[in-house]
Amino acid sequence: MVVYLDHAATTPMLPAAIAAYAEAMGVVGNPASVHSQGQNAKRMLEESREIVAASLGCDPIEVVFTGSGTEAINLGIKGLYWARAPRRRILVPGGEHHATLDTVEWLAEHDGAVIEWIPLDDQGRVDLAALKAAIARDPFDIALVSVIMANNEVGTIEPVAEVAALAAVHGIPVHVDAVAAYGYIPVDFRTLAAAGVSALSVSAHKVGGPVGIGALVLGRATTVEPLIHGGGQQRKVRSGTQDVAAAVSFAVAASALSAELSAAAGGETARLAALRDRVIAGVARVAPDAVLNGDPIIRLPGNAHFSFAGCEGDSLLFLLDAAGVSVSTGSACQAGVPEPSHVLRAMGRNEIESRGALRITLGHTSTDADVDALLAALPAAHAQALRAGMADRVPGR
Amino acid sequence: MVVYLDHAATTPMLPAAIAAYAEAMGVVGNPASVHSQGQNAKRMLEESREIVAASLGCDPIEVVFTGSGTEAINLGIKGLYWARAPRRRILVPGGEHHATLDTVEWLAEHDGAVIEWIPLDDQGRVDLAALKAAIARDPFDIALVSVIMANNEVGTIEPVAEVAALAAVHGIPVHVDAVAAYGYIPVDFRTLAAAGVSALSVSAHKVGGPVGIGALVLGRATTVEPLIHGGGQQRKVRSGTQDVAAAVSFAVAASALSAELSAAAGGETARLAALRDRVIAGVARVAPDAVLNGDPIIRLPGNAHFSFAGCEGDSLLFLLDAAGVSVSTGSACQAGVPEPSHVLRAMGRNEIESRGALRITLGHTSTDADVDALLAALPAAHAQALRAGMADRVPGR
Repeated sequence: MVVYLDHAATTPMLPAAIAAYAEAMGVVGNPASVHSQGQNAKRMLEESREIVAASLGCDPIEVVFTGSGTEAINLGIKGLYWARAPRRRILVPGGEHHATLDTVEWLAEHDGAVIEWIPLDDQGRVDLAALKAAIARDPFDIALVSVIMANNEVGTIEPVAEVAALAAVHGIPVHVDAVAAYGYIPVDFRTLAAAGVSALSVSAHKVGGPVGIGALVLGRATTVEPLIHGGGQQRKVRSGTQDVAAAVSFAVAASALSAELSAAAGGETARLAALRDRVIAGVARVAPDAVLNGDPIIRLPGNAHFSFAGCEGDSLLFLLDAAGVSVSTGSACQAGVPEPSHVLRAMGRNEIESRGALRITLGHTSTDADVDALLAALPAAHAQALRAGMADRVPGR
Repeated sequence: MVVYLDHAATTPMLPAAIAAYAEAMGVVGNPASVHSQGQNAKRMLEESREIVAASLGCDPIEVVFTGSGTEAINLGIKGLYWARAPRRRILVPGGEHHATLDTVEWLAEHDGAVIEWIPLDDQGRVDLAALKAAIARDPFDIALVSVIMANNEVGTIEPVAEVAALAAVHGIPVHVDAVAAYGYIPVDFRTLAAAGVSALSVSAHKVGGPVGIGALVLGRATTVEPLIHGGGQQRKVRSGTQDVAAAVSFAVAASALSAELSAAAGGETARLAALRDRVIAGVARVAPDAVLNGDPIIRLPGNAHFSFAGCEGDSLLFLLDAAGVSVSTGSACQAGVPEPSHVLRAMGRNEIESRGALRITLGHTSTDADVDALLAALPAAHAQALRAGMADRVPGR
């Protein structure tokens, strides 16, 4: 039995979400079809949209289903950039997910965008003073600001409302990447929209729903250019046959989420934070010189991210994997290519600290037994990774 | 029990494809993750890619999974257009699916593309002489040609290899929209690539697989700009967590398809054509003045598309729906907004003929009993639609 501690990469689907998906796949009809079967599919789709909207604190009409969180982020950023032409500047913190980084870099290469990287402090938090100064330099040429709600690698929760407030002064739209945050901390679009957020991206497979569906929450007053053109589905913002079964399954996960986050005594958030604190305490015993990255308090409840001194995160990952424990060195979204984390670099860490990075993330299936298994496997893995790390540093090798 | 005769909008999932999806959803792991669970997910994904590739006559590396056929078409067309800058001209027949039409029109508005609409003959077939002349006018400024393999509304099979050969003379890439063709006639990318096709789009839910996954077949030597940026998955052409369960389910449908299309005695193609011919003969008995649109011979085996004289297709659709038979007036992909078909207009039909359009499409679940039910319900529906059509034409109303 493998111990899965990589919930930030993807979290197991809820059994109810699997069952709902399997049942909905048996329903025949394209929701764009006029006949009764099409209209039945449409009803299932729109009921699902309502439930997903409730979990995000927005109106159903504001939920644009996409094929992934990555597509939602691309649509949010490119869509706003194109709609705001001829404005050129995009303000974005340096530690964003690759879906944001690669999107804005492509806009710079292809569409004349001028990217201004907003610095992070050493806990991964966006520098609000620097952002404010960057906005003030020329607010009228800013197409948008994009900011992550909680960092997917180091777990720091960003001051999104403060970012939005700075941009709102000048009517600048703000896109929020809430993919890592959704399901772990409350994401309430109405509150964020009141602060100035225009669009917000999430993914279903990070919250116990299926892979293959995400959503861009798009405020009613916000205009974006579409990324995918065609039949004009979903306010003409995202064309393509709508995936009813995926939406039904997403809604089951979203519904469970809404119940958990509103539970008494902190609910799932408190439960995960307690498990995470056991991980942090346990790692400190095994490797007292390991550094907890990110904000120690204002962080995702399921995230524990370390830099181990004197050994490679990759070595630890493989040794723990051999011991039946799945963890990560950082984002799983870089197509399996290991490279030093740009997030840690943006936080001012050197390459050696970046190479010792290990991310342990907890989710809805995590238990005390999982943490026990990790902490039981860690001492031997750590010792062996240290030996490998020292061997690597023998001169001449 | 509803009789479903709208397989071109979406076809029921194969029970085996549903079962495979349900089982794969229980497997935990992001295929981009390095640990064993991630690598297991990756193995499932790549095995599925091999099976889908075999059904398309291409190499697995050439299959880029997307979130829909619409996304595949957008990626094929925009990706080629951007990669071929500063070339401006896009040659495209006037009867393409909206995923193509709206994409090229956006490129014209947003990115300086110059669209040249290639005319269709009265059976919906692209005019090869006109295409040849358009290419000859200035071959070096042509970014791409895009052509549908079989028309999704009227069912005409297009001379795709001949189109590609004309473009290949000048090294112009050709994108083929095979969404409506795939599953009904052989789609062999190697043969098409030899003729000059660079990229080809398909969708899983048109062949008994799930909604929410499609594919762009992209020849090894073909370069496209990505549409969705991020973690760099799939040759960096399409970023986003790959949907293993959807790919596994798609592969089950693709595998069934490969077996059927290679079966003796014409297999499923012959079976559907026989049912379709019963529909055509039956409609001719009920409404001798109904016109079969599209090529009467070189057409999709499951497609029967008519213009009924003196009545609205919408009326027929609703009356048949009330009688428990699901059909369509044309594409289901226009978000349920009824408007005269651009395909029929491109074929030179007048508005009255377009308004009398009705599409009946058969698929893997279709039986003689379905055709019997349609032909039993049609006389009353037709008579009532005719009465409504005459009432509409009373002067002063």
